[in-house]
Amino acid sequence: MGLDTDIEKLPSHLPKTTDSILTFNKAIIEATHDYAVSYKINTAFYEQYGAEGWTIMEKTLELIPDNCFTIADAKRGDIGNTGKMYAKAFLKNMDFDSLTVSPYMGQDSVEPFLSYGKVVIVLGLTSNAGSKDFQHLSTGNGQLYETVIEKAATWGNPDNMMFVVGATQAEKLKEIRAIVPNHFLLVPGVGSQGGSLSEVSTFGINANCGLLVNSSRGIIYKSSDEGFAEAARAEARSLQAEMATYL
Amino acid sequence: MGLDTDIEKLPSHLPKTTDSILTFNKAIIEATHDYAVSYKINTAFYEQYGAEGWTIMEKTLELIPDNCFTIADAKRGDIGNTGKMYAKAFLKNMDFDSLTVSPYMGQDSVEPFLSYGKVVIVLGLTSNAGSKDFQHLSTGNGQLYETVIEKAATWGNPDNMMFVVGATQAEKLKEIRAIVPNHFLLVPGVGSQGGSLSEVSTFGINANCGLLVNSSRGIIYKSSDEGFAEAARAEARSLQAEMATYL
Repeated sequence: MGLDTDIEKLPSHLPKTTDSILTFNKAIIEATHDYAVSYKINTAFYEQYGAEGWTIMEKTLELIPDNCFTIADAKRGDIGNTGKMYAKAFLKNMDFDSLTVSPYMGQDSVEPFLSYGKVVIVLGLTSNAGSKDFQHLSTGNGQLYETVIEKAATWGNPDNMMFVVGATQAEKLKEIRAIVPNHFLLVPGVGSQGGSLSEVSTFGINANCGLLVNSSRGIIYKSSDEGFAEAARAEARSLQAEMATYL
Repeated sequence: MGLDTDIEKLPSHLPKTTDSILTFNKAIIEATHDYAVSYKINTAFYEQYGAEGWTIMEKTLELIPDNCFTIADAKRGDIGNTGKMYAKAFLKNMDFDSLTVSPYMGQDSVEPFLSYGKVVIVLGLTSNAGSKDFQHLSTGNGQLYETVIEKAATWGNPDNMMFVVGATQAEKLKEIRAIVPNHFLLVPGVGSQGGSLSEVSTFGINANCGLLVNSSRGIIYKSSDEGFAEAARAEARSLQAEMATYL
């Protein structure tokens, strides 16, 4: 579940303040954690409020039950000492279980994130239209996203590395599974972005499930009235039930 | 000048507290702004201290004179609404003049950063060893970094877009200049990373200079005693004088 909490989209009875973001997140987490194996925090939504937003992000993280896998969807990536600082910020100080990382700068921009015994989630094939600009370029060894996944997989292992594969590219999951049969894949784009859970499951499931399918707006903004948390719970339950049929 | 301020590297007379980062940055900016056209803040160094670090970053930014170009070296990159939030955080709320962005996700992950009338600085060819992993892959139209620079240049113009080209890849600047003759290039890697200012200038200068050459540790940590600011000033002056000879 993605906690992409936007002050402009809060239920109308909540005041449009940063405190309401925390109120909202608390209610959503309490209502949905029975059905969510993981919560993904998109850092942009919090950074836009500066230091105050950062504090709300930290407090939101503390509200997530320990048995749920936490993802900082931060799309960071930098080398050596700088990479280590980002890793320390998210994986040690805030104690996220994982962080999304952009692979453009190569091995020495990904490896610093492996040093805290957590999970680095490398962008592979993203769900947006712009993925065609570079990710689909032919590199002489398949397309760039395939080269990225194949090479990055050698820097870690299925226990400390995952890949982002957008749900809107479900038909590519079959080829990706041939490259990384055992890695977990983080799959955004189901729901509001148009990805099909059925197709993602058909092509992406492995013996250990191997898929972490994200839905954000489709769940958290299901209702904008005072029953928003119950509505989110019902939607999370429904999505979980659908996933269970594919497993 | 890069304000990569690390609490562990502060002059020994300063207490190892986050407040000292601001004290240090203030002294460094006051001592060097006569010789620096721009200050680059590497966000990782501040994020590692959470909300407190974010506040110090904001306060540091306020200390930089208005006539200096400010760079958030944040290497962000995300699509649509999320990209806009990062853009708002750095280019509107904090009022940085520019932000570094990773191009892996393509056009719709770069364009949101063009909406505040500021400058987006796209990673082209970076100075680290890992740049060989993907940036040098052949795409059938040159190497990936050339394709990235050529395509991204069509999304903006030389007034609202720059490219990062590492000083350790100076010999590539000639080919890059053939692709983007008029864009400014942000060139890190001179000094401690081994890049040569002379080579960078030979291959990279255009009619408007076209180069923003960054030095961080080589200036700010020139001395670790109480005369650190004067030592930084002397080093900045020396680098500025060397640059002037190439212009």
